[in-house]
Amino acid sequence: MVATPRPNLYRCKATCRAYANIAFVKYWGVVDANLNLPANGSLSMTLSHAHATTTVAWTDGPPAWEADIVVIDGKEQSGAVYRRTVSHLDRIRTAMGVNWPARVESRNSFPASAGIASSASGFCALTVAACQALAAGGHHDVPDRLHQARLARQASGSACRSFQGGFVEWSAGGDDSTSVACQVAGPDHWSLYDVVAVLDSGSKSVSSHDGHRLAATSPLQEERVRQVPSHLNAARAAIRARDLKILGEISERDAMLMHAVMISSEPPLLFLSAGSVALMRQIRDWRLQEELEVYFTVDAGPNLHVLCNEADVGEVAHRLARSPWVLDTLVNGPGPAPELRNSHLF
Amino acid sequence: MVATPRPNLYRCKATCRAYANIAFVKYWGVVDANLNLPANGSLSMTLSHAHATTTVAWTDGPPAWEADIVVIDGKEQSGAVYRRTVSHLDRIRTAMGVNWPARVESRNSFPASAGIASSASGFCALTVAACQALAAGGHHDVPDRLHQARLARQASGSACRSFQGGFVEWSAGGDDSTSVACQVAGPDHWSLYDVVAVLDSGSKSVSSHDGHRLAATSPLQEERVRQVPSHLNAARAAIRARDLKILGEISERDAMLMHAVMISSEPPLLFLSAGSVALMRQIRDWRLQEELEVYFTVDAGPNLHVLCNEADVGEVAHRLARSPWVLDTLVNGPGPAPELRNSHLF
Repeated sequence: MVATPRPNLYRCKATCRAYANIAFVKYWGVVDANLNLPANGSLSMTLSHAHATTTVAWTDGPPAWEADIVVIDGKEQSGAVYRRTVSHLDRIRTAMGVNWPARVESRNSFPASAGIASSASGFCALTVAACQALAAGGHHDVPDRLHQARLARQASGSACRSFQGGFVEWSAGGDDSTSVACQVAGPDHWSLYDVVAVLDSGSKSVSSHDGHRLAATSPLQEERVRQVPSHLNAARAAIRARDLKILGEISERDAMLMHAVMISSEPPLLFLSAGSVALMRQIRDWRLQEELEVYFTVDAGPNLHVLCNEADVGEVAHRLARSPWVLDTLVNGPGPAPELRNSHLF
Repeated sequence: MVATPRPNLYRCKATCRAYANIAFVKYWGVVDANLNLPANGSLSMTLSHAHATTTVAWTDGPPAWEADIVVIDGKEQSGAVYRRTVSHLDRIRTAMGVNWPARVESRNSFPASAGIASSASGFCALTVAACQALAAGGHHDVPDRLHQARLARQASGSACRSFQGGFVEWSAGGDDSTSVACQVAGPDHWSLYDVVAVLDSGSKSVSSHDGHRLAATSPLQEERVRQVPSHLNAARAAIRARDLKILGEISERDAMLMHAVMISSEPPLLFLSAGSVALMRQIRDWRLQEELEVYFTVDAGPNLHVLCNEADVGEVAHRLARSPWVLDTLVNGPGPAPELRNSHLF
């Protein structure tokens, strides 16, 4: 690398809190693995209580370190997570024309066992903090949020949805500049709730990052992708009309199509655990036999996300907590866009 | 109905034992629900130790009863099972030109909780016994086995495969006379084993008989059906070559495609239970990490059918029996064609 003049050592630091999201219409499969251009569009809600807070400093004052340092939830990383983070820092360095090492510290508001995809909130927070740290240090060519979201998408596809609060649609697009996420409605539009039911289950044998590469091996993927535009249209309209019934039905259907593709890929991906199926039946019984308005969706993991109206959150969380399958419940409403913070983690 | 002269009251009785079957390439979905013309061809092994023994008498001597009587495993039937049995007796009566009521008694070698589809062995045995009872009584126009199999298929599609021993392919066909099952190889050709792992699970909320009607509601069914001919070709060749690896891989893939269609139908059918997924993972681990040559298939229910070579049957049954998910194991090799019996159940 060509040496670049170092910025102001003491000002080149920033902290961002970014929020995870849950997709009602799922992203599964990529048409370009390097750019993370998705096989189909997707639509999610940013989550109010599942966030990553990340501080990035491009230098720590003399003596400056020589390699990137990555600390997550208090633990210095060295394996796959470190390499994936450094790859993303490289992406940002290239975009910004700098060659400095960074110190990154991040904390999640939710336990790793919660099975909420941490890559969306993590890479969103990392990108915003890394760019803001350079801006704070006097760097003039810091990309805007739209450009930042495209960078974050390359690290973790769903991270681009976390750049907006509320309800967010990521259009598949055809290239790096058209594969972008836009807000469908803000967080105050609808107090829809997602109660995450954390199930007792072994850890994932395949990351969703790797799983995306397998989607094309399922003979059913092409047809699933063909179904998505109508799901997107219906889900978008349901959000605008605050219609839980339509959104819930679409969410269940779309999730099942994604899992249908997963179980029929080569090798098959069995993300649903022992308890997932039992709890799906339970949720349907509550809805159909007891008229409790609940629907589920499920990501690339065993945990169920249970969608309900604000009035039913207490009852739903209570019922889920009593289930023998459920270890923990996390209640989320629509969350905000990424927030810059004044207090840093180091 | 026009009255028909009654046959010899004391000779018009017969008993048949017929064997259930497990499909490696699955039958799911119908193009003609009345005739049970399937959406695709299928290929199965008739099971050596899962059979129904059925005695049919078209009269019991004076005083003759006026309505059909159906007794299964010692219990006189009156609900849905009774109606489905009487519908099939009507089908046989129409084919034979008679109008007598029948007494039917049947016993299964396996418990109802085993989740082995009892309709295939049941309707095969019923059809053969009913026709043979008329032949024994001096009726001259008794249809041959091929015709009997077509009648049985209309009651339960997979019943037509139980008319042959060993390995049997049911060609979808285009109408009643071309939708027939043929033997690919006899029971002595290959001592392949199917160890049924009976799992702890609630009863099925939808019968597979009804489930077939839902297949067309899945947007993935059309593509699944398109995959079947290549599965059939590979499975047929694997059976002829006694190649467990190929047959096992095809069986797992084909079963997952069927379940992918089931979970994405409207409403979704979640036949896999809590333990099914956990046990699938376990079986893959045994194969990939311990080189125990085992593969699974799973029908429209939670139980796993574990395929293995004769040399491994003991080890496989032992391991499955120790699993906390498994209530019971049933060991089956390739079974025979339906057998007429001299001793009757009444």
